[in-house]
Amino acid sequence: MSRNIQVSELDRSAVEDQGVEIVERKGVGHPDSISDGIAESVSRALSQLYLDRVGKVLHYNTDETQLVAGRAAPAFGGGEVIEPMYILIVGRATKEYDGEQLPVNATALAAAREYLAETVPELEYGTDVIVDVKLGEGSGDLQEVFGEEGATVPMANDTSFGVGHAPLTETEEIVATAEGELNTTYADEHPELGPDVKIMGKREGDHINITVAAAMIDAYIEDIEAYAAAVEDVEAYVTELAEEITDREVSVDVNTADDLDEGSIYLTVTGTSAEQGDDGSVGRGNRANGLITPNRPMSMEATSGKNPVNHIGKIYNLLSTEIAESVVAEVDGIRDLQVRLLSQIGKPIDQPHVADAQVVTEDGVDVADVDGEIRAIVDRELADVTEITRKVIEGDISTF
Amino acid sequence: MSRNIQVSELDRSAVEDQGVEIVERKGVGHPDSISDGIAESVSRALSQLYLDRVGKVLHYNTDETQLVAGRAAPAFGGGEVIEPMYILIVGRATKEYDGEQLPVNATALAAAREYLAETVPELEYGTDVIVDVKLGEGSGDLQEVFGEEGATVPMANDTSFGVGHAPLTETEEIVATAEGELNTTYADEHPELGPDVKIMGKREGDHINITVAAAMIDAYIEDIEAYAAAVEDVEAYVTELAEEITDREVSVDVNTADDLDEGSIYLTVTGTSAEQGDDGSVGRGNRANGLITPNRPMSMEATSGKNPVNHIGKIYNLLSTEIAESVVAEVDGIRDLQVRLLSQIGKPIDQPHVADAQVVTEDGVDVADVDGEIRAIVDRELADVTEITRKVIEGDISTF
Amino acid sequence: MSRNIQVSELDRSAVEDQGVEIVERKGVGHPDSISDGIAESVSRALSQLYLDRVGKVLHYNTDETQLVAGRAAPAFGGGEVIEPMYILIVGRATKEYDGEQLPVNATALAAAREYLAETVPELEYGTDVIVDVKLGEGSGDLQEVFGEEGATVPMANDTSFGVGHAPLTETEEIVATAEGELNTTYADEHPELGPDVKIMGKREGDHINITVAAAMIDAYIEDIEAYAAAVEDVEAYVTELAEEITDREVSVDVNTADDLDEGSIYLTVTGTSAEQGDDGSVGRGNRANGLITPNRPMSMEATSGKNPVNHIGKIYNLLSTEIAESVVAEVDGIRDLQVRLLSQIGKPIDQPHVADAQVVTEDGVDVADVDGEIRAIVDRELADVTEITRKVIEGDISTF
Amino acid sequence: MSRNIQVSELDRSAVEDQGVEIVERKGVGHPDSISDGIAESVSRALSQLYLDRVGKVLHYNTDETQLVAGRAAPAFGGGEVIEPMYILIVGRATKEYDGEQLPVNATALAAAREYLAETVPELEYGTDVIVDVKLGEGSGDLQEVFGEEGATVPMANDTSFGVGHAPLTETEEIVATAEGELNTTYADEHPELGPDVKIMGKREGDHINITVAAAMIDAYIEDIEAYAAAVEDVEAYVTELAEEITDREVSVDVNTADDLDEGSIYLTVTGTSAEQGDDGSVGRGNRANGLITPNRPMSMEATSGKNPVNHIGKIYNLLSTEIAESVVAEVDGIRDLQVRLLSQIGKPIDQPHVADAQVVTEDGVDVADVDGEIRAIVDRELADVTEITRKVIEGDISTF
Repeated sequence: MSRNIQVSELDRSAVEDQGVEIVERKGVGHPDSISDGIAESVSRALSQLYLDRVGKVLHYNTDETQLVAGRAAPAFGGGEVIEPMYILIVGRATKEYDGEQLPVNATALAAAREYLAETVPELEYGTDVIVDVKLGEGSGDLQEVFGEEGATVPMANDTSFGVGHAPLTETEEIVATAEGELNTTYADEHPELGPDVKIMGKREGDHINITVAAAMIDAYIEDIEAYAAAVEDVEAYVTELAEEITDREVSVDVNTADDLDEGSIYLTVTGTSAEQGDDGSVGRGNRANGLITPNRPMSMEATSGKNPVNHIGKIYNLLSTEIAESVVAEVDGIRDLQVRLLSQIGKPIDQPHVADAQVVTEDGVDVADVDGEIRAIVDRELADVTEITRKVIEGDISTF
Repeated sequence: MSRNIQVSELDRSAVEDQGVEIVERKGVGHPDSISDGIAESVSRALSQLYLDRVGKVLHYNTDETQLVAGRAAPAFGGGEVIEPMYILIVGRATKEYDGEQLPVNATALAAAREYLAETVPELEYGTDVIVDVKLGEGSGDLQEVFGEEGATVPMANDTSFGVGHAPLTETEEIVATAEGELNTTYADEHPELGPDVKIMGKREGDHINITVAAAMIDAYIEDIEAYAAAVEDVEAYVTELAEEITDREVSVDVNTADDLDEGSIYLTVTGTSAEQGDDGSVGRGNRANGLITPNRPMSMEATSGKNPVNHIGKIYNLLSTEIAESVVAEVDGIRDLQVRLLSQIGKPIDQPHVADAQVVTEDGVDVADVDGEIRAIVDRELADVTEITRKVIEGDISTF
Repeated sequence: MSRNIQVSELDRSAVEDQGVEIVERKGVGHPDSISDGIAESVSRALSQLYLDRVGKVLHYNTDETQLVAGRAAPAFGGGEVIEPMYILIVGRATKEYDGEQLPVNATALAAAREYLAETVPELEYGTDVIVDVKLGEGSGDLQEVFGEEGATVPMANDTSFGVGHAPLTETEEIVATAEGELNTTYADEHPELGPDVKIMGKREGDHINITVAAAMIDAYIEDIEAYAAAVEDVEAYVTELAEEITDREVSVDVNTADDLDEGSIYLTVTGTSAEQGDDGSVGRGNRANGLITPNRPMSMEATSGKNPVNHIGKIYNLLSTEIAESVVAEVDGIRDLQVRLLSQIGKPIDQPHVADAQVVTEDGVDVADVDGEIRAIVDRELADVTEITRKVIEGDISTF
Repeated sequence: MSRNIQVSELDRSAVEDQGVEIVERKGVGHPDSISDGIAESVSRALSQLYLDRVGKVLHYNTDETQLVAGRAAPAFGGGEVIEPMYILIVGRATKEYDGEQLPVNATALAAAREYLAETVPELEYGTDVIVDVKLGEGSGDLQEVFGEEGATVPMANDTSFGVGHAPLTETEEIVATAEGELNTTYADEHPELGPDVKIMGKREGDHINITVAAAMIDAYIEDIEAYAAAVEDVEAYVTELAEEITDREVSVDVNTADDLDEGSIYLTVTGTSAEQGDDGSVGRGNRANGLITPNRPMSMEATSGKNPVNHIGKIYNLLSTEIAESVVAEVDGIRDLQVRLLSQIGKPIDQPHVADAQVVTEDGVDVADVDGEIRAIVDRELADVTEITRKVIEGDISTF
């Protein structure tokens, strides 16, 4: 059966050409991102548990991790956590299959512990943070098959909507890259930089301003001068990075709320603001493509933690982004592309109600020129929908 | 100081004129809305507590209620809750002021109990649902004044973004009105209808399809025939209501996932899907204007539960909606209006970095024709920004 | 098979004749007693649930309720609870039988709520106290039958030990009666007296001193004079009550830690010290006969909350007390009687390893004179052991 | 002021000479002992925290740890925990002193984690067990001084009662020694033996029966034969150990509830029954001297977790045992000694209302012969009461 794929001209100018653009990314150590990351790592661990034990992914959904902030007393050279954070993993999972009990709660906790150790390494498990779990019993309904013996294409059991776009604008790319590099390359050599890096990009015309809120880790900062130097290092690094991406004018501000004279600075014990009053939960931060982009349509759907075999919202948000990226990678002449997938209850999810690609073409290119190519790629990617599930389980796609 | 107000033509067609439109509203009994509603009722109660005890609103933030679903065994004539839901109220609040201890946890719990009694009356407090609370100590920092002696305009302490629009499209109006009427007028005479009513509107060209998922309450439904009749009643009611709003073709589907032969129906004990596996949390459902509108820019900000005195995200989301509504009410010739407010750190919030009104005018009307009027209204509403705070505290504005 | 019943002379003087005697009772509103009472009311409710639904009592054990104290700000005329207490019902219960799900958590919560409403009526459920529950899945092992079709005598699956005694000494009777009367007859006419009444009796020779710690309820006490009067009323009441029981010299002290000049008094909002810092848990207070009697052997076993069908420790503690009371009621010439029951693993519980009645006879009476009568009563009561189960389920025996 | 010390003949025969004797000890891995041990280790850690930070021990009390059992699936060669245990540390502590915030919750959690790692090493923290904490704010009242500048003798603020005895009977010594040796010397060479060793000693005349319930750890047991061998090893070890202590006839039974044919054996993943259905809480197991001795008066007081500076019940229970041991070590001719200390509200705790030493002398020795020596030792130990506090804080005395 042929798929309902529509290609049309996007009814607005490319975001790159709009007068004002706002982009945000909450780094992996932000309380909302920690929640997203735990939810998704729990999801991966449960998928893997089910594959290992029963050969297929059973019913579960873990998209509601709640982080309750703690209290800390940072100090130059090393302070302490006063009141631990509390993280509650919420959801449901199948706890018994064919007479065998499955350790879903222990598995969820282990995944969270491992994820935190990797992502917020200064956080001491069990004292700086308490992780608790409330996973209800999942429905025993027969599940779509995704397992050792291959995968069937599941039926959509809900009306849901996914949206993706490509290519990133310069501002988006700066914001995404800056957070990514700060939390890897840069942090490797700068242990004073915590993972709670929040980046806001604001472009007005041809001026891009990047505002970074970077949690510094007190154990690696001996005094106020060291702190000031650490802030300047981040500023210089992000400036250089941005200037490699754009020819526009760039300005970078780091920790603008600081008042060094008052000693009011962004110093933390653990590298995350969750240690001091900032709660977090799943789906409140970055969208599935890792960014918050008010200039573009966004799905409200929380992608992290959802079952990747049959949760249509998760699959369509990730797939629409993949489609958009594939199209832009393979087809010339596209300035801005937006892909929307709308599910059709009761139909296989590779047969959406509509797959809708809206495009802003470059000067001299007509939609008709690219229509066929786009259509073919959308069709191909839809046919391969279960590949998204595989990638999610193997951790090859980020969901936030 | 004059405000930076910009009025321009909206760089797209009016949503009413777009080919496909999707709108959703999660009713007050939906798990996400229950979380929003509790968070906001807790916020109102704390504001009131502070006003009563110390004459001004102190620091607090309660925007993270987490609902963990329960398990139920519905049955015609009345089933039972097997496993209670668990609701965790999360946030921080000032617990002591001037030597006086303030009962913030008890107040939060009382607000939640009262809210649940009003909104999900079939839910028995303490057995069908456990409500717990973790409110950390709020920072003792000096607060903006909002209290007996009047209000000062607070400074923005964050870069935040609010967006509102008006008027509602027909589809939006149908979705909003249908949920509102079902949960009041209709439910008063039809006790079998639970408050967890989820409405999805989809317009393709001039056909509007309204899909309603309505949790029926088992105590008022004696058998499968009564259930079928209850579903039909909702369908007829929504159809009639929609046809009063639009001249377009309307179709209405209620509880489409039902399989009456299999006995697989949407029957509940308490009127909410939270009783059986559907978790919920704040900011995951409706936006500040009560709708989810993928055709329009939406703020990711969770509005419910935030402190209405100084949380710029909450204030700007509510204010931009109010501005849009005021403009449309007072100015002729506007087909679609989008208002965006962007804060400016360190400046009073009545002086946004930019207040940006984008308009699609009706045929024959030019932006220049309405520019002055719009500008004046935006200016007036910004000047009156603390009025939003007052309305929120008094419960005159809904946040979800 | 004949039972191993031993009757011998008690190897000490009667407690009534010892030089120093100490007796204590924690009233029903004491935090430990609240825990005992909830545990036992949950136990009764689960027994009843199982009898109603499946006709027999299934496996459960709920003997570990934990009460975490709150914080309150009492004030003449009525103060408030600042921080609610938190009560965690702990144990395990069979949640599914023959394919039917059983609402054990909801039932436990309902029992706790009802118990609190009766026992600590000033405590507002859900705001002054949060009740949570963690009941693990009980083992599905086949259970001893106690149900509609009669009862079988279960096998002892543990070595356990129960001890009871009779008659009460005068000091014991005063302590027991005073708490009972204060919390019923007296409190009915004196709403200012809270249920947290702790009574310590100390007899030295022929002087009995009764120390009462009585939580007063602020809403019914308008000032310090009213408080002083309330304390005096309790003192007078207990003095009169004690003098009806004994001819010994009696002195009564109430709220001795008060310092009226400093305003340091025992004033509460809810009538229990659990509102302000006093935690509680099961088995930490009164023994199965309602008293703490350091002059006598006591079982460490927590009786409240245990399954009354097959928990040998619970049954033997209650039964040994009943036996002692029956013997003393029916046999003349006994000054002090102590009954011990020791179970024998793998044998029916009406066949203890040893049932050991130790007696102090009155002057002129020899153990041999009463040996036969005692032996017959012990035998009769053991034969009727399942009657204890019935009485516990119907609430006819108190366990603390 | 001279102390009220009384020495008299004990009004019963020595326990060693009684016909039937029962003694029990719950090993360190038993759920009740785990609770005791955590409560006490938290107490020590808080004392140390206060000494380190403010130079004296502030108000706290942590005597209510609650352990909720998990669920496990043991298997030869190594099974797994399915449902983690949950441990709630309960109490109150001073969280702020002189403007400095004190990390009491983090300290409590760290102490619990360390204690569990030492005591139940197979238990993986964070996945096999979740540890949570609810420590309310301690009263800010001025505290007795125990700190850097020395110690004052606190005033008794409650009527409390402590009781100790010495020497241990043979049965008591066997029970105590067997658990101690099994959990150290033996376990070092037998990793299959878990710390949850429960020992019941029953002496009838000159026959001593020792019943051991020993949790075996599945990872070190490859099959049923290995299990049987492990049980026999324990039996042989305890038999030998007992025969070194007594000349009476000894029989030893290990894991008597096993049914090897049915595969119903005491196999665990973690070495404690808390992994499978056995809840635990403070004060429900061993008394302050490490034993449960129904033949002797016992205090109901939970000693573990209480503040050692001013909690009179804790201090008197430990001190009375120390006094009894000192007397028996220094004075000849004592067959059984029982020491009771009764506090006197408002008086220094080295001035008890009465210190009462009751003695059974050996043949040919009269109470009068030892009265003076006993009195002197009691007096000396009372004078040195604050030494108990020091020992408790330094972990030199066990409390359970």
